[in-house]
Amino acid sequence: MTSAFSTHGGVATTGPVLIIGAGLIGTSVALGLRERGVEVYLSDPSPTSLALAVDMGAGIPIGEMPEGAPQIVVVAAPPDVVADCVVAALETYPNAVVTDVASVKSGIVAAVAEHAVGLERYVGSHPMAGRSRAGSSFADKDLFYGQPWVIVPGAESTASAELTVRNLAVDLGGIPSRLDPEGHDVSVAYISHVPQLVSSLLASQLLDAPAEALGLAGQGLRDTTRIATSDPRLWTAIIAGNATPIAKVLSSLHEDLGELVSNLDRYVEGAPGAVGVVSETISKGNLGVARIPGKHGRHQPRWGSLEVLVPDEPGELGRLFTDLGDASINIEDLSLEHSAGKKFGLANLMVQPDVQHRAVLELERRGWRVISGGAE
Amino acid sequence: MTSAFSTHGGVATTGPVLIIGAGLIGTSVALGLRERGVEVYLSDPSPTSLALAVDMGAGIPIGEMPEGAPQIVVVAAPPDVVADCVVAALETYPNAVVTDVASVKSGIVAAVAEHAVGLERYVGSHPMAGRSRAGSSFADKDLFYGQPWVIVPGAESTASAELTVRNLAVDLGGIPSRLDPEGHDVSVAYISHVPQLVSSLLASQLLDAPAEALGLAGQGLRDTTRIATSDPRLWTAIIAGNATPIAKVLSSLHEDLGELVSNLDRYVEGAPGAVGVVSETISKGNLGVARIPGKHGRHQPRWGSLEVLVPDEPGELGRLFTDLGDASINIEDLSLEHSAGKKFGLANLMVQPDVQHRAVLELERRGWRVISGGAE
Repeated sequence: MTSAFSTHGGVATTGPVLIIGAGLIGTSVALGLRERGVEVYLSDPSPTSLALAVDMGAGIPIGEMPEGAPQIVVVAAPPDVVADCVVAALETYPNAVVTDVASVKSGIVAAVAEHAVGLERYVGSHPMAGRSRAGSSFADKDLFYGQPWVIVPGAESTASAELTVRNLAVDLGGIPSRLDPEGHDVSVAYISHVPQLVSSLLASQLLDAPAEALGLAGQGLRDTTRIATSDPRLWTAIIAGNATPIAKVLSSLHEDLGELVSNLDRYVEGAPGAVGVVSETISKGNLGVARIPGKHGRHQPRWGSLEVLVPDEPGELGRLFTDLGDASINIEDLSLEHSAGKKFGLANLMVQPDVQHRAVLELERRGWRVISGGAE
Repeated sequence: MTSAFSTHGGVATTGPVLIIGAGLIGTSVALGLRERGVEVYLSDPSPTSLALAVDMGAGIPIGEMPEGAPQIVVVAAPPDVVADCVVAALETYPNAVVTDVASVKSGIVAAVAEHAVGLERYVGSHPMAGRSRAGSSFADKDLFYGQPWVIVPGAESTASAELTVRNLAVDLGGIPSRLDPEGHDVSVAYISHVPQLVSSLLASQLLDAPAEALGLAGQGLRDTTRIATSDPRLWTAIIAGNATPIAKVLSSLHEDLGELVSNLDRYVEGAPGAVGVVSETISKGNLGVARIPGKHGRHQPRWGSLEVLVPDEPGELGRLFTDLGDASINIEDLSLEHSAGKKFGLANLMVQPDVQHRAVLELERRGWRVISGGAE
């Protein structure tokens, strides 16, 4: 059968493109461009990494790059050497547009602006494609499909250079947006770096929890601590590179937490009215989470939700989806819950509100136990 | 077809059972017992709530309860009146075993011990069946299936009374465990109450985030703030009832966060070595999250993981599961990722490691785009 994922008719990016750094992101960019017929050259200080990426079909080693190439340089090096690589690339390839893919931007843009010639040809970028595993062996040509890709022009970038980087993002399936370096860094502090540190701090408290507590863990604990499994080495570099806005947000959280703790302490000692701050904390959390957009940038529509008990046996989940398909019920979103000692999972299905009632009937008719659905 | 969920051959609980409080939990207990043929009577101060539960088939109004009944009383009243209801039940029904289902136990056990006669007949309990919606209209006879149900005997509870409550839990499908009141309350502080408050505090910081930041939100932010949608009124009561252990854990977190903030501030000012605490925070988080058991109380086995791009169109998810079923690939666990502006979802599938390679081939053969799977 034909893939549901046909590539664009046309590709705006014209090569040759030089990728500096054959890690997860660099190799994924390279594979995506190769898939689209763009000429790609690769450079990496590690001969092994370079050979691996070449073997994967990601491109040709830089040693074989012809005179006059490249048109575009993508610096996908570790954060602490990105600025130097960008500066070197601007000097070495006077006709190339140069971009980087680092996840923190202000420091790099400032360092580049200090040293470089050809600043009009540099446009930073940040493809927000998170993976829990690093290295080119996890690289994928589709890594950027449907993911935000932030374009961060410097003060002197030309519109033409910016368009080149934007086309690169779009050709790889990314959803481009444009931010200045500080706006970008404040944004990722809020939506990525602070949640990472808070999740880690929360999870680290579990080291002091009694063993019996962990046996009672449910989905709430699992969700709030899922990203606490992140790699310490990688994340220390990311956070060090964005320390100023992170410290500002964490400082505000520290203050709010301090107020909460002192009010709880006063409540324990019998002070009247001291739990008002608890109610305020939960209420403000409601408002904060409501700011997160749903699918496609809209606020999440009010799906109907169904919860279905699924026996923890091979094929049962498949049977559930087959039954839903037979009944022509489309699933808008879903999550699965497990907890310790369960013989069943709980599948939380989101459907269009107008089919919710029918979905319950169809599933029950097929022998499923549906736990009362409601508007979500 | 026959339901995959056959009920037990025999039921250990013998009625009549009186349920005091026809809310979500009380009505669910009642429906589960009725399903198993147990005689159930219902009481609620609200005639409307009572009539609704009776209409749902949850039982008979207390006014019609015969002399000598009940054998068991389940107090499912709001937290702040549970102790009084338990005391009254022990006095009114001198032959009944009395339990309650409140989510915090020390205060209730202590208050009951102060006033009551018949303490040997009182055994607290906590069925850990979370729902995001309250009220009997969301009640379900299967609410407790496969969920932990903590049994919390008092100092004077008899073994026979404890067995009665344990049987009730098992008959309703719960997985019983036994904790003392303080051990229970410390446990739920760690695994439920503190994660709730931390998630709310994290989400409330988003009120100060620039609008463009929210558009970049990914799964990490969604997971860490999911429970921040909780009801402020309900949660204020729960947290007030368990303030002492919550304050202790939050206080430790507050101290760790303070150290992190001051180290980040020193790093911003140029102090060497100040990011060591960042690395330590992430590393300790790794260790903490590793304490959470996986399915069935074991640590999560190393599933093979596959990530599959799913077009955001009706029926595509169903088609994926149908294709997996056709290929006889069993799914052990799964999650779906969406983010703003995506035309695709990312289905993260966990399979047995020995079928992972075959799963990739089978899916690609059927036209799916599989993003490189790896050991999880």
